[in-house]
Amino acid sequence: MNIRIKWLRDQLKSMELDGMIVTNPINVKYLTGLEEEGTFIVAPKENVFLTDSRYIESVNNKLTIDDEIIAYDVKNMSKYDYEAFFMCCHDIGFEEKYVTYETYKKYLQTYQVNLVETEGIIENHRIVKDEEEIELIQQACEITDSAFEYVKKILHYGMTEKEVKFEIEKFMIENGAEGVAFDSIVAFGENTSMPHAVPTNRKLQSGDIIQFDIGAKYQGYCSDFSRVVFVDYMKNEYEDSYNFVLEQQQRIVDSFKNGVNIKQVMKDRESDYHLKNFSVMHSFGHGVGMDLHEEPFLNAKMDLYLKENSVVAIEPGVYKAGRFGIRIEDTYLVTKDSCINLTKSGKNVTIIPIKDKKTLDL
Amino acid sequence: MNIRIKWLRDQLKSMELDGMIVTNPINVKYLTGLEEEGTFIVAPKENVFLTDSRYIESVNNKLTIDDEIIAYDVKNMSKYDYEAFFMCCHDIGFEEKYVTYETYKKYLQTYQVNLVETEGIIENHRIVKDEEEIELIQQACEITDSAFEYVKKILHYGMTEKEVKFEIEKFMIENGAEGVAFDSIVAFGENTSMPHAVPTNRKLQSGDIIQFDIGAKYQGYCSDFSRVVFVDYMKNEYEDSYNFVLEQQQRIVDSFKNGVNIKQVMKDRESDYHLKNFSVMHSFGHGVGMDLHEEPFLNAKMDLYLKENSVVAIEPGVYKAGRFGIRIEDTYLVTKDSCINLTKSGKNVTIIPIKDKKTLDL
Repeated sequence: MNIRIKWLRDQLKSMELDGMIVTNPINVKYLTGLEEEGTFIVAPKENVFLTDSRYIESVNNKLTIDDEIIAYDVKNMSKYDYEAFFMCCHDIGFEEKYVTYETYKKYLQTYQVNLVETEGIIENHRIVKDEEEIELIQQACEITDSAFEYVKKILHYGMTEKEVKFEIEKFMIENGAEGVAFDSIVAFGENTSMPHAVPTNRKLQSGDIIQFDIGAKYQGYCSDFSRVVFVDYMKNEYEDSYNFVLEQQQRIVDSFKNGVNIKQVMKDRESDYHLKNFSVMHSFGHGVGMDLHEEPFLNAKMDLYLKENSVVAIEPGVYKAGRFGIRIEDTYLVTKDSCINLTKSGKNVTIIPIKDKKTLDL
Repeated sequence: MNIRIKWLRDQLKSMELDGMIVTNPINVKYLTGLEEEGTFIVAPKENVFLTDSRYIESVNNKLTIDDEIIAYDVKNMSKYDYEAFFMCCHDIGFEEKYVTYETYKKYLQTYQVNLVETEGIIENHRIVKDEEEIELIQQACEITDSAFEYVKKILHYGMTEKEVKFEIEKFMIENGAEGVAFDSIVAFGENTSMPHAVPTNRKLQSGDIIQFDIGAKYQGYCSDFSRVVFVDYMKNEYEDSYNFVLEQQQRIVDSFKNGVNIKQVMKDRESDYHLKNFSVMHSFGHGVGMDLHEEPFLNAKMDLYLKENSVVAIEPGVYKAGRFGIRIEDTYLVTKDSCINLTKSGKNVTIIPIKDKKTLDL
């Protein structure tokens, strides 16, 4: 029996819904294990995966009788087949955060039911990870740590942001990642002032600060990690911001554990920013799992309590327009009474004496 | 002056719309050149890019006075600022194919206007490419051809589908691509029977058929390309399907030019499939541009006329469940009176005598 589908059915019952149409592919994968394009339907009589002829063979190869899911090729379905799923049903849940307005109208027409918003029930359930999920996130974190170790060794004068990004991503894939969790951010010098800088052909120079924001994907699960390092020496102007960011991250970590109110912690951190006259340019973090950014989002509007076995990235940052930015980020597991770092790279100020390419000891 | 925004304004006028909210990031980039997260608003008095503090610096660095776009940080905006954009307006266009049901409701509340579906006006305009766009797609196609040439040389016994995928993608990035246009499909032997096979650890063997479906992304533009090759020898059972697929592609190419009705051509091809008792497992192709799959979609329901300077991937395929599949695909430019292949790799039956790794001549 699929316990995730059983959970969803119980949930729908308590919400007085007769079924649900699951459209978000991450949620479909979470519930069914299937990565193929399609829609998952929880109908009163059966669990249905609607797909097309491009995927039907692969889906049928994967499903076993224990999955309790029947796959249909939409090519073979009539108007009446669709209506039959929810025959005599009234209220059916749908994912208002994912379904487009056009698809919403199509569903109304196809299924002839009343569609009810489900307010992210599946996303909220995904906040708490099971043992296997935590293990996979840990693996993604390990690959990320190793990639960071590796790239620090191969940096050399004249390398571009794009080249460094490429080396990191190549390393991840060669070391077990199925891919990257997101397009790596690698920014040099003044480019670090933009939190979402896109790597350019800017070349590495002595005195540069380098911002890394990188993460691997391992068997469907993400990691998220940021560090800055300094080339040859650390300019004085960076010191205060570096220490502030590091301290803010530590304060969040110190207060995070099961049952803590997110809003309260984040408001305290915002006060610290205001006292220093620093802008809060982005949230302090987010959940990490099958999605890189998922519930819970760590900002001062989130009146929500942390749960044991949730995984969050904590990433305070300080940005000085046109000059520099510093962000430190780790992926943490929230436990009953603490918060454990899954990305293990050190956080002391790191100054890298950079070599010419020809003297690089590889 | 931005001629794409001017075109959109004229278009909205003819549709009796007072403005439009553009949400699809590809459409935003097409109109504004901006890749940062945000919403583009065509309001009666101004063109507005709504973004947040993570992106505002980078956006302001890019925009010049000629862009005629004003960027706002949503952090500094009140309820009244939003309402002011469409003050005294009645009907405002939105992208019903992209906007979620939740966002649709939020827009209604935020802008206090009547939201009108725009039926993909921007996507439809993107069908016809300008000179620069065609040049970029050509570059993406060249990189793809080279990657295919390269990978044929390094194939060796025992290599896995995943490894081959990795080599192709690495080659593309090292040779000028900003990334892949999509996750490359590499399937060996019986795995080729699934049109959207996901690369596995299946190892290469003598007698295998290999399906490649690959594409590079170059400065925002995609290419799409598929070939099969045969390892050491070609099994008899493949021959008929190979020739059929190649012939079907050629027939489509021969009939494609400006003004041709897509539906009619596709219906003729479907008849050929039915005569042979082959299933039509997927459409015969699609437009290619900033999106990998975009308008026009090449299937027998598409009652649309081809236009000069549109770019399409033509990709007939034949699939025998549990045994094999064969798909041949190229990216073409439609001209006034023909259809020019932008991916230049040959299509004769290709048999590759495979080496052991140690004898590989790299």
